[in-house]
Amino acid sequence: MNHIYLDYAAASPIHPDVLKVMLPFFSEKFYNPSALYSEARNVKEAMNSARAQIGQVIGARPSEIIFTAGGTESANLAITGVAECFPGSEIIVSSIEHEAVLKPANKYNANLIPVDEKGLVKLDCLRELISDKTVLISVMYANNEVGTVQPIKDISEIVKLVRVARLKKGIKTPIYLHTDAAQAPQYLDLNVARLGVDLMTLNGGKIYGPKQSGILFVKAGVKLRPIILGGGQEFGYRSGTENTASCIGFAKALDLATQNRTDTSKKVSELAKYFMRELENKFEVTINGHKKLRIPNNIHVTFKGADNERVLFYLDQNGIFASAGSACSASSDEPSHVLKAMGISDKDARSSIRFSLSKDTTKDEIDLVLKKLASALKA
Amino acid sequence: MNHIYLDYAAASPIHPDVLKVMLPFFSEKFYNPSALYSEARNVKEAMNSARAQIGQVIGARPSEIIFTAGGTESANLAITGVAECFPGSEIIVSSIEHEAVLKPANKYNANLIPVDEKGLVKLDCLRELISDKTVLISVMYANNEVGTVQPIKDISEIVKLVRVARLKKGIKTPIYLHTDAAQAPQYLDLNVARLGVDLMTLNGGKIYGPKQSGILFVKAGVKLRPIILGGGQEFGYRSGTENTASCIGFAKALDLATQNRTDTSKKVSELAKYFMRELENKFEVTINGHKKLRIPNNIHVTFKGADNERVLFYLDQNGIFASAGSACSASSDEPSHVLKAMGISDKDARSSIRFSLSKDTTKDEIDLVLKKLASALKA
Repeated sequence: MNHIYLDYAAASPIHPDVLKVMLPFFSEKFYNPSALYSEARNVKEAMNSARAQIGQVIGARPSEIIFTAGGTESANLAITGVAECFPGSEIIVSSIEHEAVLKPANKYNANLIPVDEKGLVKLDCLRELISDKTVLISVMYANNEVGTVQPIKDISEIVKLVRVARLKKGIKTPIYLHTDAAQAPQYLDLNVARLGVDLMTLNGGKIYGPKQSGILFVKAGVKLRPIILGGGQEFGYRSGTENTASCIGFAKALDLATQNRTDTSKKVSELAKYFMRELENKFEVTINGHKKLRIPNNIHVTFKGADNERVLFYLDQNGIFASAGSACSASSDEPSHVLKAMGISDKDARSSIRFSLSKDTTKDEIDLVLKKLASALKA
Repeated sequence: MNHIYLDYAAASPIHPDVLKVMLPFFSEKFYNPSALYSEARNVKEAMNSARAQIGQVIGARPSEIIFTAGGTESANLAITGVAECFPGSEIIVSSIEHEAVLKPANKYNANLIPVDEKGLVKLDCLRELISDKTVLISVMYANNEVGTVQPIKDISEIVKLVRVARLKKGIKTPIYLHTDAAQAPQYLDLNVARLGVDLMTLNGGKIYGPKQSGILFVKAGVKLRPIILGGGQEFGYRSGTENTASCIGFAKALDLATQNRTDTSKKVSELAKYFMRELENKFEVTINGHKKLRIPNNIHVTFKGADNERVLFYLDQNGIFASAGSACSASSDEPSHVLKAMGISDKDARSSIRFSLSKDTTKDEIDLVLKKLASALKA
């Protein structure tokens, strides 16, 4: 049976071109990049090129790119790494962050920024939450469940004002802005200077790269304590013999993801709009998240009164793969904290489904999904 | 130019059979194992099989196997994970551990077990170091630099006596034994019950598996706090979308590494003995480490008065790859802490080279290395 895969926010296959650049590093270029002989130095060189390539894409220096074992580790490194450097400090995170941000944040003195019913962080609340002790603000770029894109640039403007005020008051505590951009590369600008971020998490597993590949961008000067210690690889920020194949694959995946961003966004956006229109025409639904400030590939929809597990099961039986929310919490029975924060009732949460498209999704697939949804909801 | 690779302790290529089982998980089986649709459940099932397969090899239950992003992370999880559960406790590690153990240990109240001139931990000293507050002892199975194999079973007997004594005294603090077995699988028994360990680190990158693959064995009941938080994968001990290809590859690599252990050990051991004999016949050398209690593939040799960097450079130019010690510290100028702990002078340390063989190393290769060494040392 041919499958229709609409869960790209959860995982993507590795692009053939990505696998191609990875393969030599499994076999003939397997050397430990920290070793000193010529062939190992060549592997190190390839790692450095990958780092430079990523730097090019996000507008950072190679020395500001830390390879990690994926988005979750990157986000943990950002939160824990900064918090551990400043004991007694405060951090502020949005209430709709991924668990990879929320859980490490909860180990420290953390405040949550509430969001409105569209999933947008309330900037006024953020301003009020900032104290002289705040060292880190973490707001995700595009939400993985409902697709809302956050005003990162506006937040970075707020951070800049805080810096100016602190300078005047003689307060030396820094304040950093981290964004989890795991869902963004294919659709949104990643330039760290334009965004005004000090730390940024990227994840290969969602952009046709290898799973557990990723980086943390760490702006020069940002104070960060490593969470994994040892041989001192990655400028001391992430020890362990480098997963060269994965790093090289990630760089390639990021390159591919961002190359045709305008075209991809346009294509996916049009298809998503068609899908949403048809959903609204055919069923009693609410499309969740922001109407305009949203990542093009996400459609999060509440089918009034339906049981999402039953619908998903029916779709699955018909070869259509979608999800109730983030895969990480899929096995938990708790309604999503994201929907809760947006004021969506538990009942509606249990009637909601996330479809996440990709550049490879076709109109025929969407039409078939609509047809099967009609059967599922009638049944 | 054909290379002669004698740095298997630093890295190994991926075995073709390992790559073969990995490949499907890059493409058609790319699904997020936490998702609930049928194909994702199949991926989860494959992960569970890999876990069971590893459990079979080391004599553990599948639920006692935590997949990590490699040996360094596993060792960090063991040390930090236990230490964080017992604030104010003490830990004891050998003075010749890898940095992946030493550095996290140094964050806590850690004592070092000295070693003798052969690199064997002094059990009497260990006994004296244990206090009522000791929660964790970490001693590596086979040393990555000099190859000495530690008496893990004897240490576990000591630990058992401590447990009995604590029971009598009504002390409820547990005491765990962790071993970093990264260099062991191809040559030494890994059965956790026979070894008597509570935690064990394994590393795929040294056994023809993928880099940054590995596990931490965590015996049921051991208290451990995760260091990477998020979606709660790996029984809550290691969050992040699973690197399925890597986990499946690791299981296969471990299987292959341990399948013909007796034959491999015998073959490698004979070749290493020949190499050592010839080194002693032809040059003014000291073979470091223990004569008998050593891992068969390691030869760590001091060429009296020679400059190891110059020799290694000469070998490199002749297509022979060896190292001065662990790759992790290869770029540092500090003499190895392992050699220091064994009482080897800095001068001798700077005249020392580690050759690490594999089942694929041939006598012809060793003969060529001996020839080139003669030229290098004459030059």
